[in-house]
Amino acid sequence: MDKGQTIRLTISTRQEETKTTVVKRNAFYAQSGGVTAVINASACGVIETARARGDVIGAVLAGRNGIIGALTENLIDTGRESDAAIAALRHTPSGAFGSARYKLKDIDQDPREYERLIEVFKAHDIGYFFYNGGGDSADTCLKVSQLSEKIGLPLQAIHVPKTVDNDLPITDSCPGFGSVAKYIAVSTREASFDVRSMSKTSTKVFVLEVMGRHAGWIAAAGGLASDAATEIPIVILFPEVAFDRERFLAKVASLVDTFGYCTVVVSEGAKGPDGTFLADQGLKDAFGHAQLGGVAPVVADIVREGLGLKYHWSVADYLQRAARHIASKTDVEQAYAMGKAAVEFALAGKNSVMPTIVRTSTHPYIWEVGAAPLSEVANVEKMMPADYISEDGFGITQACRDYLTPLIQGEDYPPYKDGLPDYVTLKNVAVRKRLPEFRL
Amino acid sequence: MDKGQTIRLTISTRQEETKTTVVKRNAFYAQSGGVTAVINASACGVIETARARGDVIGAVLAGRNGIIGALTENLIDTGRESDAAIAALRHTPSGAFGSARYKLKDIDQDPREYERLIEVFKAHDIGYFFYNGGGDSADTCLKVSQLSEKIGLPLQAIHVPKTVDNDLPITDSCPGFGSVAKYIAVSTREASFDVRSMSKTSTKVFVLEVMGRHAGWIAAAGGLASDAATEIPIVILFPEVAFDRERFLAKVASLVDTFGYCTVVVSEGAKGPDGTFLADQGLKDAFGHAQLGGVAPVVADIVREGLGLKYHWSVADYLQRAARHIASKTDVEQAYAMGKAAVEFALAGKNSVMPTIVRTSTHPYIWEVGAAPLSEVANVEKMMPADYISEDGFGITQACRDYLTPLIQGEDYPPYKDGLPDYVTLKNVAVRKRLPEFRL
Repeated sequence: MDKGQTIRLTISTRQEETKTTVVKRNAFYAQSGGVTAVINASACGVIETARARGDVIGAVLAGRNGIIGALTENLIDTGRESDAAIAALRHTPSGAFGSARYKLKDIDQDPREYERLIEVFKAHDIGYFFYNGGGDSADTCLKVSQLSEKIGLPLQAIHVPKTVDNDLPITDSCPGFGSVAKYIAVSTREASFDVRSMSKTSTKVFVLEVMGRHAGWIAAAGGLASDAATEIPIVILFPEVAFDRERFLAKVASLVDTFGYCTVVVSEGAKGPDGTFLADQGLKDAFGHAQLGGVAPVVADIVREGLGLKYHWSVADYLQRAARHIASKTDVEQAYAMGKAAVEFALAGKNSVMPTIVRTSTHPYIWEVGAAPLSEVANVEKMMPADYISEDGFGITQACRDYLTPLIQGEDYPPYKDGLPDYVTLKNVAVRKRLPEFRL
Repeated sequence: MDKGQTIRLTISTRQEETKTTVVKRNAFYAQSGGVTAVINASACGVIETARARGDVIGAVLAGRNGIIGALTENLIDTGRESDAAIAALRHTPSGAFGSARYKLKDIDQDPREYERLIEVFKAHDIGYFFYNGGGDSADTCLKVSQLSEKIGLPLQAIHVPKTVDNDLPITDSCPGFGSVAKYIAVSTREASFDVRSMSKTSTKVFVLEVMGRHAGWIAAAGGLASDAATEIPIVILFPEVAFDRERFLAKVASLVDTFGYCTVVVSEGAKGPDGTFLADQGLKDAFGHAQLGGVAPVVADIVREGLGLKYHWSVADYLQRAARHIASKTDVEQAYAMGKAAVEFALAGKNSVMPTIVRTSTHPYIWEVGAAPLSEVANVEKMMPADYISEDGFGITQACRDYLTPLIQGEDYPPYKDGLPDYVTLKNVAVRKRLPEFRL
């Protein structure tokens, strides 16, 4: 760490006085993997902070479609965007420069892609590499930094955390997660009120499918819909708990018996006792092919078949991670702070690090910015603690509530125009290429 | 109309002066059919207006679970709720007293249920019947009024319009619809931004299933996500337009070619050329039974099979009609106004009517409260005008935009507590029964 600090030169001026002058370097920023409601808030934090330090940072160039933009030298000149447009990123969901699901080849097997990245960064005088993503991109970030140092073209690589899956280590939470959690908690409460109204003569069980292929963080957020003031019967199906058909049906039957209805929040990653995804079971199309995705209809069908109860089901899919209109204010602030800290870390000479959210207190919730070495972040997946799931496996514990509740605090409404959120679409002007073409 | 006005008696006081005294009658209010984000705002309008006129209206009794509450004499004394709780109904989605999908038996075949309603109303001194629902409940409302008059127990029956389907005649729009429309327009815009970000390497087509079994009003609202400032490639599948697989695939392919991605908004009621629901085609469970519901996965599968494009799909289901957190301010105000007008109509002596929303101007949007005789409302379904659908059948016209845009104007955020909307759950205290049991 702290190796590739800003280069300072002492040069002579015409007046023969000596002055310390900073050699400005450009910055590269890219978005990686699935986007979120607040990843652009991190972009906003990076760009606004870099603009404020125009004395040491030159242009901020963004990768068009993430790291692919760097590999193919498809760079965007963010300097062509107005301050207002950059400020609007803070309230705009999705990835403004395009993101990519692209895993670089193993550096030991084929270092060509990594070498190309450094070649592009050299050609565009990139001194700072800000990579906004999850565990995979932290690994890429680390390797770029290591290779650049090895070949004598030092580059400060800072990873900006982002993932709705909340599975990055060290950081207390991941920007993007708090807003999904809020959306799922709000939606679960609203739909449960609806079902409660209808349950006398109509729907008695509502099934909501949420994201989370490996960990039940998002499903757990559904549990927040019920609290002491607003009691709602909720059954959560976590990927961490093997689905047991009989126990599940008994739980649903018991809740419907007591409350007249119940809501099931099921993680897309829910698995049966044999370890296969519930979503992959059962549904076939007209040609007998397995129908991909959709665990909600599978669970709803189990309820119908097992209990004969009337049901409705919903699959939130992209709606949940794009729902900037109901983003968590805490999450927006943290996403922005991570982008800002990334630039500040770079200017402080840090390298191969990721800013983190450090929770210093839960009651009241207090957090501050920390730093984690990328070597401890890359390829490490944080799972949900076992004591966050209630004993029967269908709910969340008080420890889980204490962890989740601060993350959904506050609303940060976007401006509206003609009844719709006024989200920004950037001009995304291309930077002139300087290198030969590179085939992916 | 104007028959059963408030009864005024001249009585003698102890001081032998004559005074005009009003005999107070109680009011009955019930919610019917699928609930909405704003039906409680109508309830709030009814109850607050009735409370303000405590000189002429006694108790407001609500039906527990809609009309079933009246039939079984399960009445709720809304007088036991605080002013604050009643005010909170304005920002609480769902049906606070419970709703019901219950169709009364044909009055000519079996008048028992209608007679029972009047018996219950008589037992509880009900002079005003406020019924909050769609076309079916308007018909019930009308028949109750006719029968009560016939047997000499006059009752003022006022229907309060409500339906997300927007299919009631005469009124320019239906409370409940504007908020669903806003939710679908906002969600379509947000998810489209997400897909746009991901389309280079991942999802290229996003399919969103929305409500609307018979008419494409809600699907049409998805079209609002795209406008002059924010161009989004959207394909709408209306129930009004027979699904043509080849034309659909050509349209999607062309948009993906131009924009790199596209969003499909499909109405649950979309039908094939043979008139069968697309949702009923194809999907079977593990036992070979047809899987009910879910046109989104069917359409997504058609895209995969026909074009080989990566897709995601979402089914909004109850989330869309319960989403009070993003309700249209216009819709909330109109829902409240309809409840308020219902009481004012009753006090003005009107009978067998429904307050309506009259649009007097589109640019700027101006509306006022009108009145429609129930005989012209009951069992009449308003379909979407043909000139609201674009020539190719996949989009909306300017006329449709002009109609829809005012309905989603304004936000009316509920208060939040601990990161979640602070929705009210009423005490719903039962009124003591006075009649023998009635079997449904």
